Parts: sequence; structure tokens; C-alpha cells
Amino acid sequence: MAETGDEPGRAGGRAPCRPAPGEPKCPEVGVSVARAGEFGLIARVTARLATGHATLLGPGDDAAVVHAPDGRVVASTDVLVEGRHFRRDWASAVDIGHRAAAANLADVAAMGAAPTALLVALCMPPDLEAQWAEELADGLAAEAARVGAGVVGGDMSASPTLTIAVTALGDLGGQPPVTRSGARAGDVVALAGRLGYAAAGYTVLSRGFRTPKILVEAYRRPEVPYGAGPSAARFGATAMIDVSDGLLADLGHVATASRVGIDLLGNAFEVPEQMRDAAHALGVDPLAWVLGGGDDHALVATFPEDLPLPGGFRLIGHVVHGAGVTVDGRAYKGSGGWEHFR
Amino acid sequence: MAETGDEPGRAGGRAPCRPAPGEPKCPEVGVSVARAGEFGLIARVTARLATGHATLLGPGDDAAVVHAPDGRVVASTDVLVEGRHFRRDWASAVDIGHRAAAANLADVAAMGAAPTALLVALCMPPDLEAQWAEELADGLAAEAARVGAGVVGGDMSASPTLTIAVTALGDLGGQPPVTRSGARAGDVVALAGRLGYAAAGYTVLSRGFRTPKILVEAYRRPEVPYGAGPSAARFGATAMIDVSDGLLADLGHVATASRVGIDLLGNAFEVPEQMRDAAHALGVDPLAWVLGGGDDHALVATFPEDLPLPGGFRLIGHVVHGAGVTVDGRAYKGSGGWEHFR
Repeated sequence: MAETGDEPGRAGGRAPCRPAPGEPKCPEVGVSVARAGEFGLIARVTARLATGHATLLGPGDDAAVVHAPDGRVVASTDVLVEGRHFRRDWASAVDIGHRAAAANLADVAAMGAAPTALLVALCMPPDLEAQWAEELADGLAAEAARVGAGVVGGDMSASPTLTIAVTALGDLGGQPPVTRSGARAGDVVALAGRLGYAAAGYTVLSRGFRTPKILVEAYRRPEVPYGAGPSAARFGATAMIDVSDGLLADLGHVATASRVGIDLLGNAFEVPEQMRDAAHALGVDPLAWVLGGGDDHALVATFPEDLPLPGGFRLIGHVVHGAGVTVDGRAYKGSGGWEHFR
Repeated sequence: MAETGDEPGRAGGRAPCRPAPGEPKCPEVGVSVARAGEFGLIARVTARLATGHATLLGPGDDAAVVHAPDGRVVASTDVLVEGRHFRRDWASAVDIGHRAAAANLADVAAMGAAPTALLVALCMPPDLEAQWAEELADGLAAEAARVGAGVVGGDMSASPTLTIAVTALGDLGGQPPVTRSGARAGDVVALAGRLGYAAAGYTVLSRGFRTPKILVEAYRRPEVPYGAGPSAARFGATAMIDVSDGLLADLGHVATASRVGIDLLGNAFEVPEQMRDAAHALGVDPLAWVLGGGDDHALVATFPEDLPLPGGFRLIGHVVHGAGVTVDGRAYKGSGGWEHFR
């Protein structure tokens, strides 16, 4: 498995491939998906995948078999479409693999579960370089490996539109799933992970810039606090969600499902200096990134107020009687997230 | 859940929608996916889904939770792309839902497992009628309901290319998974389900015809012998695969994975009269449909020769020392299946 920082095909500087003895061969350059053929490409991609701890039967058969020690399995599907969810000129195939995996693994973590496996359906224009698919698989596998999960199966097809549909499976470890609907008035709201970095990186890239690096990298490879999900479940979280549509929008889902209101502490959202500087240079309100941006996949959860918060979580607000999400008791006027068909 | 034959939007005659009291409302006609919006459409679609026996938490949260009583979960992903795997002028949305579900449920059955759940990623052009997506969900849910499985989750996105990626989960019921690699020389080869019907229906439709109905319907809605999968596992099947690329191609996968040869009995493949007549009219060798066509999702398995075959299976050949697949000891000259990037 390639390590962060030395993948071939990393955007911003492609290092020559020099595998050590025993490592996978360098990808063949210039071979299209159509020329590699379906079975050839599947063989090339699966040769690059590592096995997760929970994998009982990996790629190569009609279906995979994954350990589900808890007697239940958590499952989530997310799809990324080129031009809407990613651009090949903004991020390398490895980066896009990381992002696609992270979006799904975060959904599993947000139930309080530990991810065990990924399955990937990949639709590719026939003239796409086979190497791109191989490097995407590297990114998917590397992100999954962060939580000990394996890429256990998938499917490939030709398509005019490059599309990546990922399904993540996970194990609850004996805890009840933490849904969106269990928040109660009096609970505290706590956050694990970062907000606004990926949204800021997206804006930076969309204006044609490549820096600040910390923002652009956050967009390319979200840093998801996966372990915070199962921790929250063990610490008695009453509700949890991963921030994929934006904090206000996603807490709005929790408020609606739980039939409560949520009031956030305005001073809990200090904008980091680099983000503030970038926002100033681009003429953007940085709080719109923090409260409305989703691609960092932070985890936000509600906890009974008398319990200690698990490590990695910090207090950002309170659950109240009522409906909707407010900041210091007032409606926030900026963008609260986005819908995918706009 | 709509029953076969009375779905709104069925190709070949759209009956007016007249729901009985307590049944879902008629779909709103003429509303596009873009106008319905992502959250609106998800609500419309999930309202139409039934819950499977194994569903612990269905759509509406970050992830679903599915019963996995066996401590293992079987998982498979297949993707269908408009123009390559389906055409909207050849089949209704309900039919396409049935086919998309069947392709995945068959993969789970081919491991010897009982399907428990589906997850669906749906990419749609923004001008697609929302009703089409709702009827697709009806078809997916109806096919899943045949085996007691539920549609437990999914994702939607706008895309220029209508794409349906389905993941199926299943339970092995305490049996070991039946892989492709366990066939041994001396085993018998047995088949459950139909061959060539869907391929014949595809050819009929591609030449602009709509009959014979039995062939066209077989293409639109495969009749998969789901129960034969777990039966084969209980009866000691040594290898199994679902016929998705064509019998010769798929048995080729078994032969390669098991390092054996497979010899089929030519007289086991009698061509039904309607298929023979259609083949004659179209100037096609019907045996190419039977031996090379895949969309019926028959299950083919190998069994120790001294054991009885489970109900629904019939003898079609033998596992031999060697390599490759022959018919009566000779190589078959026709098409042996197809690759998806051709």
C-alpha cells in the first residue's frame, strides 16, 4: 500500500515510480480502460488492494464475505460524479480515492460503528487511462486501511460519465446505533473534527488558486475523526451525524428527526488565521465555510449534559425545546448547506 | 407494493393510477428530478419502500443497520449504465428496477446466501421525471421483496448519465460460502434457472420487435432461482456462480479458479420452440443465446457426484482434469459471453 506523500500520480508533482523489491509494479502508462479490458483491469486493480481485518473473502468471486461479529452490519452508499463531486484537474486519482472512501467511512462512523469494508462501483469513459483507475484504487484502499477496513469487492463499467459509487460496511461492537433522532432538550452538542477547511479549499480551487496548501489539501483528502464515532457511542451519545451538507444543514436534520431545536455557541467557531486570510483575499465570509461547508466530514453528536465528553469532542451548543438551528439564539443568515440537484 | 402487471408506467401500456384506500398516492406527473430536489425526491422514493425482515434501521439516517445473524455478511455491487445495460425505450422504470435488483441478489444467492438488503446509488439527469425514479424504486423494492429483503439505503446525485449502482447484502445461514474455486474433477455440473431467454429478448428488442412476449419479458425481468443458491450450499455444492456473462464464460471462471476443466453435455441444452422460431426468423444460432447469454441469472454449481442434486437443479455436465470448458469434449465455436468494455 502506498503511503501518504509518495503515491504516483499525486497532483502537484508526479514522482517517478520506483518500486522496492516485493512492492507492486509501476502502473503501465498510456493504456486505456478499453484496451486493458474489463477482466484485465479488474485483475490490475485488485492486485493493488490490501485485505482488511474483517475480510473473510475478498474480490474475485460473485460476492465478498465480511465478518459481522456483532450480528448486525451497518451499511451506507455514497456516489461521486465527475464535475459535481470531483474534478480530475483539481485532485489526483489517489486523492479522489481518499475522498470517496472518506465520505462513506464517515457515514458508518457517524452511526457509532467501526468500518470493516468498502465495495466500489466504478463507471469510466473507455479512453480513461487504466492507471487512473489503479491509482483511484490505491487511494480508496489507503483511506480504508486507516481504519483497518479492506476494499472487498466492486464492479466496473464503461460510461460517458466518470462515476464512483462506494458502499461502506461497519460493525457496531455491541453498542446501539446512534441515529439522528435521539437528541433531547437539555443535551449538549459536541463536535469532533474540522469545519470549513474543505469548503475553503474548494473555493480556493474554484477561483483558480492552488494555495493555501492546508485548505486545498483538506479538500483533496478530508481528515475524518473516524474513531470519534465509536467513542461517542460508548460515551452515551443520544444522536450523531457526519457533517456532509454543512453543520447548520446537518444539525437541521438532527433537529427535525429528534423534534428539538439546537442552539449553537457563536464563540465556539473561531476562524483559523489561514482561513480568515484566504476568505479576506477572496471576498468571502469565512463563517459560511465553517457553518455551511460539508466536505471535512466532522462528526457532530449530542450527549446528556451530565456525562463527560469523549476525547476529541468539544462543546459547540445545546439542544433546546423548539425547532430549527440557531446561533446564540438567532437564525444565521448565510448559506446553510447545499442540495445536490441545484 | 405494486404487483406485476398493474404498475403505472409499465412499458407497452400505461394504466391510469387508481390507488386503493391506504395505498401510496399516484406519482405526480411531469415533475423533474431537479424540481423535486434531492431531499424531496429521497422522501418521495423512501415513502414507497417496504421494510425487509432483516432491516433494523432503514433509510433516513447516515447509514442503515441490517441483521447479520450468522456473524458474517455477504456483499456484492453491480452497476447499470443507461445505453449499456438498459434502455428506457425498451423497458419501464419498474422493469429496470427489477433487473438491477436481480443482478445483485443473484450474486448473493450464488454464494449460497439469502439476500437481506439492497442499497442503491442513483445518478440522474436533472430533467428526468421524478416519477421515473419512484417507479424504479418500486421495481427494486418488489424484486427485493421476493426474497424478503428490503431497500435500506442509498444516495442520489445529478449526472449527465443515468446510472444505477446497487449493493446487495446477504446471510449465509451458518453454511460456508460457495466460491468459484472449489470444483474438483469428478464433480457433476448442475444448473438452476433458464438460459438464453434474456439474450434472445435483447436480440428481439435490438431488431425493433416487441414479441415473442416470453423472450422480451425475460429480458425485462429475469426470473432468478434465488432459493437454489442456499439449497445448493446445504446440498454440499463445491463451487457456484451466477450466469451473468454467459454459461461458457462463467463456467470458464469456475474452471480457472478451480484449476479444472468442465465438459458440458450437448443434449442438456434443448432450445425451446419459441426461442428456436425467433432465432430462425432473426437468422441467429439459438445456441449462442443459450451458451453465451447472461441476463437470466441462472445459477450453475458443481456437486460431488455421489450426492443427490437439490430440487431445481438439473445435470448439465462434468468437472474433468484439465482446463477450459468444452461441449461433448469439443470446443464450442460460438460466442462465449462478453466483456463490458467492448
